[in-house]
Amino acid sequence: MTLTTPQGFRAAGVAAGLKSTGALDLALVVNDGPAHSAAGVFTRNKVKAAPVLWSQQVLTTGRLRAVVLNSGGANACTGPEGFQTAHATAEKAAEALGCAPLEVAVCSTGLIGKQLPREAVLAGVEAAAAALGDDALSALAASTAIMTTDTVAKQSAYTDVTGWSIGGTTKGAGMIAPSMATMLTVLTTDAVVDAPVLDEALRAAVRVSFDRLDVDGSMSTNDTVLVLASGASGVAVDPSAFTTALTALCRDLAQQMQADAEGVTKRITVRVTGAATEDDAVTVARTIARDSLVKTAIFGSDANWGRIAAAAGYADAAVDPDRLDIVMNGVLLCRGGVAAGGRTDADLSGKEVLVEVDLGLGAGAADILTTDLSHAYVEENSAYPS
Amino acid sequence: MTLTTPQGFRAAGVAAGLKSTGALDLALVVNDGPAHSAAGVFTRNKVKAAPVLWSQQVLTTGRLRAVVLNSGGANACTGPEGFQTAHATAEKAAEALGCAPLEVAVCSTGLIGKQLPREAVLAGVEAAAAALGDDALSALAASTAIMTTDTVAKQSAYTDVTGWSIGGTTKGAGMIAPSMATMLTVLTTDAVVDAPVLDEALRAAVRVSFDRLDVDGSMSTNDTVLVLASGASGVAVDPSAFTTALTALCRDLAQQMQADAEGVTKRITVRVTGAATEDDAVTVARTIARDSLVKTAIFGSDANWGRIAAAAGYADAAVDPDRLDIVMNGVLLCRGGVAAGGRTDADLSGKEVLVEVDLGLGAGAADILTTDLSHAYVEENSAYPS
Repeated sequence: MTLTTPQGFRAAGVAAGLKSTGALDLALVVNDGPAHSAAGVFTRNKVKAAPVLWSQQVLTTGRLRAVVLNSGGANACTGPEGFQTAHATAEKAAEALGCAPLEVAVCSTGLIGKQLPREAVLAGVEAAAAALGDDALSALAASTAIMTTDTVAKQSAYTDVTGWSIGGTTKGAGMIAPSMATMLTVLTTDAVVDAPVLDEALRAAVRVSFDRLDVDGSMSTNDTVLVLASGASGVAVDPSAFTTALTALCRDLAQQMQADAEGVTKRITVRVTGAATEDDAVTVARTIARDSLVKTAIFGSDANWGRIAAAAGYADAAVDPDRLDIVMNGVLLCRGGVAAGGRTDADLSGKEVLVEVDLGLGAGAADILTTDLSHAYVEENSAYPS
Repeated sequence: MTLTTPQGFRAAGVAAGLKSTGALDLALVVNDGPAHSAAGVFTRNKVKAAPVLWSQQVLTTGRLRAVVLNSGGANACTGPEGFQTAHATAEKAAEALGCAPLEVAVCSTGLIGKQLPREAVLAGVEAAAAALGDDALSALAASTAIMTTDTVAKQSAYTDVTGWSIGGTTKGAGMIAPSMATMLTVLTTDAVVDAPVLDEALRAAVRVSFDRLDVDGSMSTNDTVLVLASGASGVAVDPSAFTTALTALCRDLAQQMQADAEGVTKRITVRVTGAATEDDAVTVARTIARDSLVKTAIFGSDANWGRIAAAAGYADAAVDPDRLDIVMNGVLLCRGGVAAGGRTDADLSGKEVLVEVDLGLGAGAADILTTDLSHAYVEENSAYPS
């Protein structure tokens, strides 16, 4: 049920000494082929980590043999020295695997602004290459090695009746937003898919999964989603069936990230319907999902729909205040922009909160997944090790 | 040192029973002339409270005799009934003062989505009209009656050597952002200024004061800033001198709001210089000021400049990661996008934090005032009475 569910992949996770705790902190995922098509989606932050700059170059070839991922340091804001570290990491993996450095992507996560200890990383790559396995435990070690403030490893897989499968892992708990998160995701498949189809499927899947998760509105310097296709099943998939399965898998991973977000006490889905366009629906849902007053009210189990109305009203989208309907956990609270009663009936005491906003203007609809803003979020982020 | 510092103004604050605590909750400010020019700036939220809709109509005349303000209820999302309440409030004040309803603005603040008890409001207006005074105590009562989660009344005044003065009061503690805040501000002056000059001066002052305060990124349904000019000093002011003084006064009131923001433990100034344009400087400063990870790090006195770099990088403005310099409380932490050391030297343990970001691209500069994100913010906003 993970990275190594599809045929043709091996994985490893080792402790390279990047985390002071001695926990697993370096992962290697290898595509043994026969095919090596790949695609990637990266952060849109203008401040890009060194491994992002490296991996973007690599992905222009549409081809990947392996991915090295580390926690314990983002290798962002590290200048030429940091870029050399990312490059040396790819070279070391290429040497160990017998491929070219340009076939190796690199991903990092952790504190921004500190150089990674290069020798420790390179030794870790060697150890990981020696530890590669196609079993579930090896995959779990890789998934565990990329965790930062995550409390659980996140894995998923899908096997199609026609004989191909997809696997994946992700990490991310804070700095999660506009488009993706401080998240690193690796997806594997043994379907026969060429790089252009893979690229298109990945973009379509990310758009409605990771891009619709917004924990705190912060966009990371390191966000990366990679998909590697080995073709080892020998099954040539229909692109649309593949996209559907990949989207479902990405949604599952995004939900796992939501459930494990920093300080989460409630999982919130903001569902906007009746928007003039889908883009408007996303904008309104995201604005509500990011509003600190909405998030703190839900933390307090308070059906304070007025804050939701106010957030909808300042979203950069078409909103008619007189057509606004708001429902929380099934209870109509606001109809046509005016209180509809029911406020005391809305029970938000559970862990799941569904906020439904109907703008009454058109057919645009979107869900954004978010979390509440709790004491634990403040605690975790004010105490994150410097 | 307040609303009644300028000649020609009276004020009152009474307990109309809108707050369950029995505290002062309704204010009346009257301009006794001889002139009655006025200007206003209102929220850009598409969901506008009934009193905003009413007062916007009133202000098209450029003329005001009086303002009624209440706390204990925002009269937002209250439909036609709420609008009738705002209208009836103006009518009652007009009757008591012997003027036209269209010469009376109305402002409300408090919970969104609940009808105000109309009879209590109207009785409060009558009581306030009977209590009007031009003394400091009457002005303080008015300033106190508009408080919600504010912990102190906020007042300011300026007297010019040439014989005219400006006074002002404001309230606002949460839901403070993009453009103004959940803030109600009334400014008075006895200078001789006609409505068009007043309007231009107000817009110029608001743009660099209230519009540059951003506590939590939330834009309220009720934001209103009004300025009333009595002409009672007989001094015709130079528009530019008046704008300068009005701007300084608005900045003072904005700083008072920052200092009293919900859950504040640190007052943060984000100063961006070297931007391509002033708009870019505002955008980058605002993005940093709103970033939950930056705000929680500062709450924890952690000079986590990497989060500042990341926030600058996702701001919708021209940013070159290789030209980014970051200084916190005087200590250079990042130069040309790379760690400059000094992290342990930056002392953020005090109540004032200055974040300086030089983009190295041009001459655009701007300050945004904000606060940290603390346990107290979460507590106050999850427990705000429903």
